Amino acid sequence: MDATEQSLRQSLSEKSSSVEAQGNAVRALKASRAAKPDIDAAIELLNKLKLEKSAVEKELQSIVSGSGNGSLNREAFRKAVVNTLERRLFYIPSFKIYKGVAGFFDYGPPGCAIKSNVLSFWRQHFVLEENMLEVDCPCVTPELVLKASGHVDKFTDLMVKDKKTGTGYRADHLLKDYCTEKLEKDLTISADKAAELKNVLAVMEDYSPEQLGAKIKEYGITAPDTKNPLSDPYPFNLMFQTSIGPSGLAPGYMRPETAQGIFVNFKDLYYYNGKKLPFAASQIGQAFRNEISPRQGLLRVREFTLAEIEHFVDPENKSHPKFPDVAKLEFLMFPREEQMSGQSAKKFCLGEAVAKGTVNNETLGYFIGRVYLFLTRLGIDKERLRFRQHLANEMAHYAEDCWDAEIESSYGWIECVGIADRSAFDLRAHSENSNVPLVAEEKYAEPKEVERLVITPMKKELGLAFKGNQKNLVESLEAMNEEEAMEMKATLESKGEVEFNVCTLKKNVTIKKNMVSISKEMKKEHQRVFTPSVIEPSFGIGRIIYCLYEHCFSTRPSKAGDEQLNLFRFPPLVAPIKCTVFPLVQNQQFEEAAKVISKELASVGISHKIDITGTSIGKRYARTDELGVPFAITVDSETSVTIRERDSKDQIRVSLKEAASVVSSVAEGKMTWQDVWASFPHHSSAAAEDE
Amino acid sequence: MDATEQSLRQSLSEKSSSVEAQGNAVRALKASRAAKPDIDAAIELLNKLKLEKSAVEKELQSIVSGSGNGSLNREAFRKAVVNTLERRLFYIPSFKIYKGVAGFFDYGPPGCAIKSNVLSFWRQHFVLEENMLEVDCPCVTPELVLKASGHVDKFTDLMVKDKKTGTGYRADHLLKDYCTEKLEKDLTISADKAAELKNVLAVMEDYSPEQLGAKIKEYGITAPDTKNPLSDPYPFNLMFQTSIGPSGLAPGYMRPETAQGIFVNFKDLYYYNGKKLPFAASQIGQAFRNEISPRQGLLRVREFTLAEIEHFVDPENKSHPKFPDVAKLEFLMFPREEQMSGQSAKKFCLGEAVAKGTVNNETLGYFIGRVYLFLTRLGIDKERLRFRQHLANEMAHYAEDCWDAEIESSYGWIECVGIADRSAFDLRAHSENSNVPLVAEEKYAEPKEVERLVITPMKKELGLAFKGNQKNLVESLEAMNEEEAMEMKATLESKGEVEFNVCTLKKNVTIKKNMVSISKEMKKEHQRVFTPSVIEPSFGIGRIIYCLYEHCFSTRPSKAGDEQLNLFRFPPLVAPIKCTVFPLVQNQQFEEAAKVISKELASVGISHKIDITGTSIGKRYARTDELGVPFAITVDSETSVTIRERDSKDQIRVSLKEAASVVSSVAEGKMTWQDVWASFPHHSSAAAEDE
Repeated sequence: MDATEQSLRQSLSEKSSSVEAQGNAVRALKASRAAKPDIDAAIELLNKLKLEKSAVEKELQSIVSGSGNGSLNREAFRKAVVNTLERRLFYIPSFKIYKGVAGFFDYGPPGCAIKSNVLSFWRQHFVLEENMLEVDCPCVTPELVLKASGHVDKFTDLMVKDKKTGTGYRADHLLKDYCTEKLEKDLTISADKAAELKNVLAVMEDYSPEQLGAKIKEYGITAPDTKNPLSDPYPFNLMFQTSIGPSGLAPGYMRPETAQGIFVNFKDLYYYNGKKLPFAASQIGQAFRNEISPRQGLLRVREFTLAEIEHFVDPENKSHPKFPDVAKLEFLMFPREEQMSGQSAKKFCLGEAVAKGTVNNETLGYFIGRVYLFLTRLGIDKERLRFRQHLANEMAHYAEDCWDAEIESSYGWIECVGIADRSAFDLRAHSENSNVPLVAEEKYAEPKEVERLVITPMKKELGLAFKGNQKNLVESLEAMNEEEAMEMKATLESKGEVEFNVCTLKKNVTIKKNMVSISKEMKKEHQRVFTPSVIEPSFGIGRIIYCLYEHCFSTRPSKAGDEQLNLFRFPPLVAPIKCTVFPLVQNQQFEEAAKVISKELASVGISHKIDITGTSIGKRYARTDELGVPFAITVDSETSVTIRERDSKDQIRVSLKEAASVVSSVAEGKMTWQDVWASFPHHSSAAAEDE
Repeated sequence: MDATEQSLRQSLSEKSSSVEAQGNAVRALKASRAAKPDIDAAIELLNKLKLEKSAVEKELQSIVSGSGNGSLNREAFRKAVVNTLERRLFYIPSFKIYKGVAGFFDYGPPGCAIKSNVLSFWRQHFVLEENMLEVDCPCVTPELVLKASGHVDKFTDLMVKDKKTGTGYRADHLLKDYCTEKLEKDLTISADKAAELKNVLAVMEDYSPEQLGAKIKEYGITAPDTKNPLSDPYPFNLMFQTSIGPSGLAPGYMRPETAQGIFVNFKDLYYYNGKKLPFAASQIGQAFRNEISPRQGLLRVREFTLAEIEHFVDPENKSHPKFPDVAKLEFLMFPREEQMSGQSAKKFCLGEAVAKGTVNNETLGYFIGRVYLFLTRLGIDKERLRFRQHLANEMAHYAEDCWDAEIESSYGWIECVGIADRSAFDLRAHSENSNVPLVAEEKYAEPKEVERLVITPMKKELGLAFKGNQKNLVESLEAMNEEEAMEMKATLESKGEVEFNVCTLKKNVTIKKNMVSISKEMKKEHQRVFTPSVIEPSFGIGRIIYCLYEHCFSTRPSKAGDEQLNLFRFPPLVAPIKCTVFPLVQNQQFEEAAKVISKELASVGISHKIDITGTSIGKRYARTDELGVPFAITVDSETSVTIRERDSKDQIRVSLKEAASVVSSVAEGKMTWQDVWASFPHHSSAAAEDE
């Protein structure tokens, strides 16, 4: 690591601690809101805490980074990475000759190879090793499927439009930009004003359209490009809409996730699996999100590749037979409690986190461990990877527990994999909408005498009392668990009525004795029929790849010391090209030898490139380092060649005949470079790299 | 091959010869039309030929298939295949619990594995072995890209609507159904009428909307579902339309092919390749086609996976250095001339076909050879695969030559791969529309004194003479090659005017001397700048897979002879699961042993399945045969196991330790089953299969 790089990395890590600290404060605030109904008091309390923290952080930052330009350095680092990526065609802005379209990027040749390697490894690590069922469903999806999943109604962002030009903006982005800029650049604002703006930043995620609109008006925020006035915020559905068939009467959407394709196939997959639980189904494919105004380059795009797993499990038994395989892993975790008390992520032993109940269940824990192994084997730095638990108010009401694998990049901590226990929500939703039962059965060895809770909502009475909300009441009453129901029964019997929270109405109502009958009955049952829970690890492949680029990017001085050379330290597993083959000088014998090696490499599936340009070998090495190619074979005689390893620049000498097999062994992980280094004569690289 | 299968296959092959014969006649007709301006005479001539052929064929067919029920048998065969595919979840009608949507299918677990294997092999066989540049572009594509490519204006089918219900139908399908049904079922029609209907079938592909509408009226064709009257035919664009971003002002489409993503990136890819020609870029991805009313099950779908190659080459040098590698291949080819003279496809040596000019150039020939190798290695029957050349009138005006790899299935000969020399059309179109030159350069070793043809259309005079068609005239004049231009110059000088065919206007015009200046000038040039030609092999992955299912499907009697068992004879390369592992009986030792083998198989990337059900081993073999699993390991002791090969049902005995490595070697093609059979003790299968 040279000085420049070190300083870049240092300031990056500082800035991100500061960002993280702010994040923690926000989370603590949210947590306190979730815990206490008295929101204002909580906000006040936490703003005080935040102001104190913030002052400390600022001091710290300006001390360490000298000029306090952490964010500048992060941007310089990002620029260096992104420039290299674009110049070497890891990615290309889509439709570039037509000036491009925001939020669309092509994978160029090396990017495409990396993507293909990441997906192959994903298939090996998850589908193959876990015996998952893989499916492949269309992107075009009819409306009724996405109506059932909730996307038609809820997959929205709040948008404002420039009243004159009609250009759309994300309402929360504009408000966030306004607050951040004021806080960073306006030195005249009072402490009270600053506290208010910070408070807005902390709570705006939960604003209703009306609240957001009121703030925009209050602060006089206008369209950033034109300074024109803005419309009121309104929800904009983020799905790309289309129409199936020629009638124009069958609306469809480009799927926003691949998961629904698995849920609608649950019944067939369950039968395919011999009617046994647990089992997992997976899907890799394109997903679409018609962002209002995409930002954050390669991280926030309108079309992306997802790899999703739906692991179906008996809700009464979420143990996992292979959990012991990952129980001893230790890595950065950031449980709810640590976030609420303003601490940082720290290292936990996964087995203990599950044993203590920090992670809800073994299966969820198992996937957290497997995701950790997947990401670190790809080349993600384990010190810049953490598993952050969702706070109670971040999760959907049906979710049991949820952890995001977040990877630190120049944009901060980025959610790259979400691992959620979604309970039975999705299967129930499709069951109800399609009228096809999506359930599993557990056959008893012999019939069981079972005490069954029977909740019978009295529809007529509920209808009279609650009119249009009758359905919500019926559902909420039926959804009570045994404890809740028996408590209600007791209260109804003693007091004649009871306060009851209807979560779908977000309010309490009074239930009277004649509105519901609750009893326990003995029944002989031969089997248990239930809706499985689903544990869903969902991978944003493009985000993982982008973070991998940042984690693998590095620079080192050229031999002459006159310039900084870029390199990507990709592990061979993901490297876009495993090997380059160079004839040292342009002559027919060497070129023929290079072709022979090339043919052998191709036949064993090792991606490689021949470079027969007359450029100096040093330049050719530099070129290949910048693509992250881990090995280079240089043909410098008719009988033997050298093999150079990218990171160490060490070289060995092997016979022409062995070259392809040595490279293929080390590229496929059958041998390490250390093994190879110990087995073959070393070759001095000084002369070559100097050229 | 048992008797049933043999008879199925026989009748299949008969029927298809008859279909082929009809196809030949139609092609001959078209060819004669292309050759002679006097269309009516040609039609008459060819209908006579067709009637004669048809009579012979009918006789032949009724003799061989007994009851003349060839098409019934084809349908029975297809039904058997499709039932098995659907029951074993090779595919699933998409959104099935919501009653599905026509033209959408999911790949279920085994189908998905086969697709993944086919694509991996495609990458190995084309991308890796040919050192292609792979890219990955979005499906959502802005309108201007597809306007330039011609899809916005021309990617249409003619549609008619039920005037009362609004249901849409493909106009040509209705007319085709009418004619076919009349010919097949109405025994009262006269010979004249029959000839007329056959003529319609032969030429309808070239009907204008008006001609098609007139025929529909003349025959009184109504909506098939309701018998309501139909609207006039009008073009319906087959692209799924959407809108990018929130404004509603940026129309986009789901791409109808992946090729355009490569063309728009030509410039970057050319630089990436060190500004050297030839090079190829490839893309695998989803493409979309909003069919009016999809038919033909898995062959005609609304969303599908394409794998496309664009091989860019100097138009003046289409040789290919690796052509000798494929020159000796012999396989079924169906050149234009054979089609025109009513013959069948026959075996040609590829090298000779290129040498004789039957195939336009070496590069096109090289890809034909590589496609042949690709398809046959996947398991496509080489006797049911042919390369059919497009007739002159089937090709776009810019295409130099085009060959389709057609695979015979129960639906007839199906186009699965198109291999076209598209000249410079696509790059020119995007160059013109984007104003970014998409060209290549050839630097001369030393400057050349070159005689250059200079064509200068006189825009003013052309405008006065041809008004709105001026642009077409200018383009057509500029597009003349040297020979045409010099001939025009000579005629203009001798006669003062000349007849000139403007292909974009489809008519001849008279060019006068003052409308164009043609001359040759000497220039010193340092390089040649030109638009590369592109040779495009385009693979319909879903179609290839469907044909593979039909070619690999087979039945054989159970040991007891009481039922027919299905099997798919997939080569290990594409088999969805390479191996099943069975403990012979349910006991802990055997199950443990099976788990050890499973772990070893997973670690070397061999897909497999453990079956620990207590079902008889014979039933478990049958189950695995029906999924096309080539090998089964049966654990019948604690120290050794048997390995069974699917097609021969032969079994060998190997030690527990060797099991995974033997299966992995033979599954990955490092050894053949013959090698294995020769090296290990044989195990009598009689007892096992009987159980």
